[in-house]
Amino acid sequence: MNAEIIAVGSELLLGQIVNTNARFLSQQLAELGINVYFHTVVGDNPDRLKSAIDIAEKRSDIIIFTGGLGPTKDDLTKETIARHLGKQLVMDDMALAGIELYFKRTNRIMTENNRKQALILEGSQVLPNDYGMAPGMVLEKGKQIYILLPGPPKEMEPMFLQYGNRALSAKAGLHDKIVSRVLRFFGIGEAALETEIIDLIDAQSNPTIAPLAGDGEVTLRLTAKHTDEAVALSMLDKVENQIRQRVGQYIYGYDNSSLLEELTKLLKDKRLTITAAESLTGGLFQQEITSMSGASSVFKGGIVCYANEIKQHILQVKQETLENHGAVSEQCAKELAENAARIFGTDIGISFTGVAGPDELEGKPVGTVYIGITVKGRPTIVEKMSLGGTRAANRSRAVKFGCYFLIKNLRESQNAG
Amino acid sequence: MNAEIIAVGSELLLGQIVNTNARFLSQQLAELGINVYFHTVVGDNPDRLKSAIDIAEKRSDIIIFTGGLGPTKDDLTKETIARHLGKQLVMDDMALAGIELYFKRTNRIMTENNRKQALILEGSQVLPNDYGMAPGMVLEKGKQIYILLPGPPKEMEPMFLQYGNRALSAKAGLHDKIVSRVLRFFGIGEAALETEIIDLIDAQSNPTIAPLAGDGEVTLRLTAKHTDEAVALSMLDKVENQIRQRVGQYIYGYDNSSLLEELTKLLKDKRLTITAAESLTGGLFQQEITSMSGASSVFKGGIVCYANEIKQHILQVKQETLENHGAVSEQCAKELAENAARIFGTDIGISFTGVAGPDELEGKPVGTVYIGITVKGRPTIVEKMSLGGTRAANRSRAVKFGCYFLIKNLRESQNAG
Repeated sequence: MNAEIIAVGSELLLGQIVNTNARFLSQQLAELGINVYFHTVVGDNPDRLKSAIDIAEKRSDIIIFTGGLGPTKDDLTKETIARHLGKQLVMDDMALAGIELYFKRTNRIMTENNRKQALILEGSQVLPNDYGMAPGMVLEKGKQIYILLPGPPKEMEPMFLQYGNRALSAKAGLHDKIVSRVLRFFGIGEAALETEIIDLIDAQSNPTIAPLAGDGEVTLRLTAKHTDEAVALSMLDKVENQIRQRVGQYIYGYDNSSLLEELTKLLKDKRLTITAAESLTGGLFQQEITSMSGASSVFKGGIVCYANEIKQHILQVKQETLENHGAVSEQCAKELAENAARIFGTDIGISFTGVAGPDELEGKPVGTVYIGITVKGRPTIVEKMSLGGTRAANRSRAVKFGCYFLIKNLRESQNAG
Repeated sequence: MNAEIIAVGSELLLGQIVNTNARFLSQQLAELGINVYFHTVVGDNPDRLKSAIDIAEKRSDIIIFTGGLGPTKDDLTKETIARHLGKQLVMDDMALAGIELYFKRTNRIMTENNRKQALILEGSQVLPNDYGMAPGMVLEKGKQIYILLPGPPKEMEPMFLQYGNRALSAKAGLHDKIVSRVLRFFGIGEAALETEIIDLIDAQSNPTIAPLAGDGEVTLRLTAKHTDEAVALSMLDKVENQIRQRVGQYIYGYDNSSLLEELTKLLKDKRLTITAAESLTGGLFQQEITSMSGASSVFKGGIVCYANEIKQHILQVKQETLENHGAVSEQCAKELAENAARIFGTDIGISFTGVAGPDELEGKPVGTVYIGITVKGRPTIVEKMSLGGTRAANRSRAVKFGCYFLIKNLRESQNAG
């Protein structure tokens, strides 16, 4: 069984909104074990919608439509499908009662065109809309399954989760359980990672191994199918172990986690507090750590030391350090991290100093970054990097590298201790 | 001329990422006056990609591909198009040099599969990639224009803006020049703004006036078409003047400007320096001000004072203030701003304290925000707000309001002085 998602709406083709419905439904179908081979977006135009349906019927068993079920003149998904399939539109009493109730509840007056939303394709199964008016529909004809869903994500997503996926599973006669797991990597590029495990990727069809790169990180999505979910999970464990044996040192987390989330978790577990002295990154590290609620148990505050006078007078970096080594130096990063931890009274200090760009600084090229990390009871380390991106990318990657080095440091001390 | 956007990538069909590229390109093509009739998403599969190309050629003059230009085995967009069009892939020396430089600059070792990214379709015009490795391509064959762009938005968007749209306009023989201008508003809601100028919006078809709301701001995009660019620009001037006569007091800038950029410009003009004491916002204000290159002339550094002990011991907020009024109070905001300016030796101090959420604090509800602003030679002001959003929205809106109040304060002192 394979599926295609057809989103109907000129606002998508004008770039006014982004097609998050296709993403949501693709995730849901992947979990059901249904392959999605195509997404299509078409405007509020009956001829072009009909041509898209013709194409979809030739290549897809399940066709899911989103959008075009509303009350206005340009909402014509079900009218076009009805004509295409030779079906009547009939008034659904339950749907009509739901719409009338909706207007009563929101104290608004129902206009005549709202009744249109209660018309359904004859012979279809109705999917109730708990967060809006237009009901969804599921219909089988020939070897195809047609599913019609409303466009607004706030209506569509709960409708699919509550009613749509069950109706689809039943109609599609699904037996396999699908499980997936994302491994998150940092410190290794996509090409290098693939080179290390290319034989595994090529050999596997169940589980599948799919690499994805973005924002300086790489992920591998492992997906296994089996009628018994426990067996599918153990298949994932097995391939994860194979991958860990080769490139385990670069794995920092699973699924939707982030380096900052992993770091915060580690700090909470170990009851450690942290402060930061940020020059290059201008507060980005602190902003990100405080963006998570509950940060206050590990983070009390820190300094943005953009100018050298702040490094010297507030963070007590030695004048000779700035004169002899410069602000972008190993020595300065070390003093910043150590002095910040002392001044703020924390277990850990992290510092970021470097050249974000666009211009070089102290004769050091754009992308030169020093990250100082001091953890109580361990020697201070300073990591030097040469990043080669834009100003924004250099700052954001520096924060990620800082988290990565600190996570490594804390995990090593865990293993050592 | 009509266009179709084909995004290539199994990660889209698995729902791992959302197709923001189609949205971006649709907006760009709309500005060029090119109709987009279809978006298609297809996986990393040569047969299905070929079938999508066959369909697109029957219905679209311009076919834009995104994704599948990378170094790994599943990147096969250009290979598939080459085979489909009977073209060779040839090594492009400039592109190869760019890739080699990228590896040198980032101190990484180039693996053999990275060379693959420098292969281009013979006879195509190369679009340089300033933020990554894979170059883009533009190719005409028969009556069709084919454009190949990389998948990562950080590479694709600047490539299209810098090189792609010009190449496309030339190949498509567009005559009308399209100019547009965005007016940026703060302090007025979308509905209120639209009410003020609804007659202008309704009456205009060239220029068009399109409101858009987001992130607590409202913008109006004015777009004019004319064969003579100077005429189109004067059409924009005229409608902008009409709008300014009605709601000019809420306009703070143009195009991609931001409140922070306007603030930085003002500070530079007036040769004023600023520091910040951030509790609620956790470094967001400082991170944003330092995200602009050249920030160092106005911003030297500041404090993130997340915990009360930091407010008290580092920023010298009186113990009785914290005990009697709490950290989320007018009094605390005032002391934070004044003390930060004194400690950091700046002309201006700004402070942010409040309840970001999800939980209330000191018995004050989520969204309670105090912003303290002290400008040398003027009395300190504290603005209180009740924002009602998520944690992230409350933090980001607080920073915007802080900029807005400070801009107003500085402009008033300008007018007074």
